[in-house]
Amino acid sequence: MKFSIAVMPGDGIGNEVVPEGLKVLKRAIEVSGEPVELELTDYKVGAQRYHETGETLTDEELESLRKHDAIFFGACGDPSVPSGVLERGVILKMRFGLGHAVNLRPSKLFAGVTSPLAEPGKIDFVVVREGTEGSYTGSGGSVRTDTPQEVATEVSVNTWYGVERAVRDAFARAQARNKKLTYVHKHNVMVHAGHLWRRVVEKVGQEFPEVAVNYEHTDACTIYMVTNPERYDVIVTDNLFGDILTDLAAAVTGGIGLAASGNLNVEGTAPSLFEPIHGSAPDIAGQQIADPTASILSGALMASHLGLETVAKAIETAVEADLAERDGTKRSTAEVGDAIAARLG
Amino acid sequence: MKFSIAVMPGDGIGNEVVPEGLKVLKRAIEVSGEPVELELTDYKVGAQRYHETGETLTDEELESLRKHDAIFFGACGDPSVPSGVLERGVILKMRFGLGHAVNLRPSKLFAGVTSPLAEPGKIDFVVVREGTEGSYTGSGGSVRTDTPQEVATEVSVNTWYGVERAVRDAFARAQARNKKLTYVHKHNVMVHAGHLWRRVVEKVGQEFPEVAVNYEHTDACTIYMVTNPERYDVIVTDNLFGDILTDLAAAVTGGIGLAASGNLNVEGTAPSLFEPIHGSAPDIAGQQIADPTASILSGALMASHLGLETVAKAIETAVEADLAERDGTKRSTAEVGDAIAARLG
Ligand SMILES: CC(C)[C@H](C(=O)O)[C@@H](O)C(=O)O
Ligand SMILES: CC(C)[C@H](C(=O)O)[C@@H](O)C(=O)O
Repeated sequence: MKFSIAVMPGDGIGNEVVPEGLKVLKRAIEVSGEPVELELTDYKVGAQRYHETGETLTDEELESLRKHDAIFFGACGDPSVPSGVLERGVILKMRFGLGHAVNLRPSKLFAGVTSPLAEPGKIDFVVVREGTEGSYTGSGGSVRTDTPQEVATEVSVNTWYGVERAVRDAFARAQARNKKLTYVHKHNVMVHAGHLWRRVVEKVGQEFPEVAVNYEHTDACTIYMVTNPERYDVIVTDNLFGDILTDLAAAVTGGIGLAASGNLNVEGTAPSLFEPIHGSAPDIAGQQIADPTASILSGALMASHLGLETVAKAIETAVEADLAERDGTKRSTAEVGDAIAARLG
Repeated sequence: MKFSIAVMPGDGIGNEVVPEGLKVLKRAIEVSGEPVELELTDYKVGAQRYHETGETLTDEELESLRKHDAIFFGACGDPSVPSGVLERGVILKMRFGLGHAVNLRPSKLFAGVTSPLAEPGKIDFVVVREGTEGSYTGSGGSVRTDTPQEVATEVSVNTWYGVERAVRDAFARAQARNKKLTYVHKHNVMVHAGHLWRRVVEKVGQEFPEVAVNYEHTDACTIYMVTNPERYDVIVTDNLFGDILTDLAAAVTGGIGLAASGNLNVEGTAPSLFEPIHGSAPDIAGQQIADPTASILSGALMASHLGLETVAKAIETAVEADLAERDGTKRSTAEVGDAIAARLG
């Protein structure tokens, strides 16, 4: 079996964590004995290229990405580039262009990991964040820009089609897990989008009578996230709320150094993308001090997505073992990757 | 001196906590010896009235509210009323109609109060949440409603005028506090609104050269809120982000039972409104188990706004003393109010 993977480290610590993610993935495949070959193709995106060429990710590249089986991404964004240019020109362009309907973000407090919460309890849920619409479309604009009469709008676009894809995926995950789905919005204020979400959840829910559904306002959800995160099994929410809640969820489960994600094309019409949820962290880039665990776990998500369940499981087990024995000793980014790879046998 | 106060308990626990807020306020005025008289006018709003009359808050009432010096509000919202009807018909109607540009939300971890964080450190910041625009305007709509082709939009409206009012207030507060202002947005994605915010902060900041300004994405801010809330002095942000972040801030400082807020008309053209940030909590309403502390502290914010600094300080001191000695003994809502009132002397 040959899988073609597009590799895109991007900016900052993306360049340090992606090699570790790949190192562990390759080793896990080797050890599994499965006849799997990875064919890696590098894509160079990010600040340096932008400064040299003015390009972020071209339409041709987006087209060419379609021929791969998956994309392994690092991070993008740099203070030398105007805010939003790389984010929208690279990662959002792929999420939208390749139909990444579901931004899947597991949140688990692993044994041995310290949560900032005094009594974290058992935290083990997944967030299904809608990935292709909401406040992320760039719709809107500004009139009388830079005058005291300026008006700037930002339009959240929500479609039955887009919301249903994410909601259906979330119900299916809840059905396969503990049969609890929490949908999060702010439908007492954002009535147009909120009521669409509500109607979709009600409709799709009829197909999953075993799944218990409850609703929380986003603001209330942040409270429970720190007082009672055990309550969650599967959370489904829109793009913006999901962005916010998954960073918070990562924080309560020990930090964004550990949080992996998959941007899934649920119809299988284009490759899915796997990335740590952390950003490029320019403040600590180039020092080999970034934690590559999130990238390594993203590798496991990718393996699972490609049907390599044994490989995925082996990576997770190795990561859990490493986490359980971390004792505060400082290790370089590569040393963490080496240690986890070594545990694979 | 006579102050005319509109009293609006609203729904659920609003009816239980507002009397305690007033009880403590009256006692604090009495004890202060200041020649202050409160003239209270009741306004009945909420689910019951809505069911009886179909009304939320009429335009005539909104007009009549203008003649008061301040509004003391409880909460609104009830499961028997479609989501959003009471929230938008009552509290948002006042915030918008009376120009409550600044939604002020202090966050302080009081001595004796347990935070869900293992090492909360010293938490003492205020959030200046813009109160009259952003995603709260109700702009947007839905086409092909309830069909697979539905599109629902929610338009965040941001004006230089509205943003500047909030930002200027925040800078002034930072100047009077520890001279640190964090402005929070998501300008790498919501570029139209985000860049307006950024330009306003840069412009107004020129008038406050002593205030150190830094920017955080909303998602990153939720992380710091649980890992390092000590970093904040004054936070300024938009209506929706502010809603989310202040519930989280309330949670890390011991719960929304303690969090007070002021909806301030900064130009003095209409009365300001003071309310707990918690909602009507229908699940615990009518049982006299709600914590009235947030309403009592809202009374202190109102006193301070009316120029009664001694009264405000006395209430805060009494609340701090009560909090420091809470030992888990169950007290009714009224007993907490009585205990705090008794501490005033
Ligand atoms: C980089 C940025 C555009 C992105 C987002 O907001 O989705 C990031 O925060 C994430 O969560 O993946
Ligand atoms: C009741 C609701 C409309 C309100 C809001 O979203 O502003 C509440 O959550 C608050 O924070 O005061």
